Amino acid sequence: MYKLLQIDFPFTGPFGEEMTAAFGELAATINDEPGFIWKVWTENRTTEEAGGIYLFDGQENAQAYLIKHTERLESFGISGIKARIFDVNEPLSLLNKATLAVAQ
Amino acid sequence: MYKLLQIDFPFTGPFGEEMTAAFGELAATINDEPGFIWKVWTENRTTEEAGGIYLFDGQENAQAYLIKHTERLESFGISGIKARIFDVNEPLSLLNKATLAVAQ
Repeated sequence: MYKLLQIDFPFTGPFGEEMTAAFGELAATINDEPGFIWKVWTENRTTEEAGGIYLFDGQENAQAYLIKHTERLESFGISGIKARIFDVNEPLSLLNKATLAVAQ
Repeated sequence: MYKLLQIDFPFTGPFGEEMTAAFGELAATINDEPGFIWKVWTENRTTEEAGGIYLFDGQENAQAYLIKHTERLESFGISGIKARIFDVNEPLSLLNKATLAVAQ
């Protein structure tokens, strides 16, 4: 069953194009994580928050990535990480045009 | 600029197939909201939480929907709603296979 991993945390930048430049290399490695399907990178310069919304193929891989990513964020000096793992209601999500499979 | 609306709240059900049956009609109406692109429906029977991850075409439509949806959830007796609106970092999200356009 698909699992959605929702993470956000206090973040003071870099934002926008500078975030893209700073994290492009890291992003490329995420494509190789077991069970990873997609990630939306989120950022809010005004509230000084950032995060990610991830789709994984199941609980085990979502949980393993969350542990790995939390350790990485903490190594960046980030604290106050809020993370949740949810089941995806597939019929309702597909009705609302969500992409649940790996992009071809 | 794409905006991601992240909502979650305490929820005691219905979950799974019963959620699908209960909210199918509501879901269909969401496709008609101004600027709506997609929604992933999230649910967690164990922690008794549910929510949604929405992509909108911009801040104005995301904000308007958040106000409307918050009022609807409160009319269902739901409180403790946690909502955030984020910018989407498009290059990093596309690198990580996220779908940012309306499905064809």
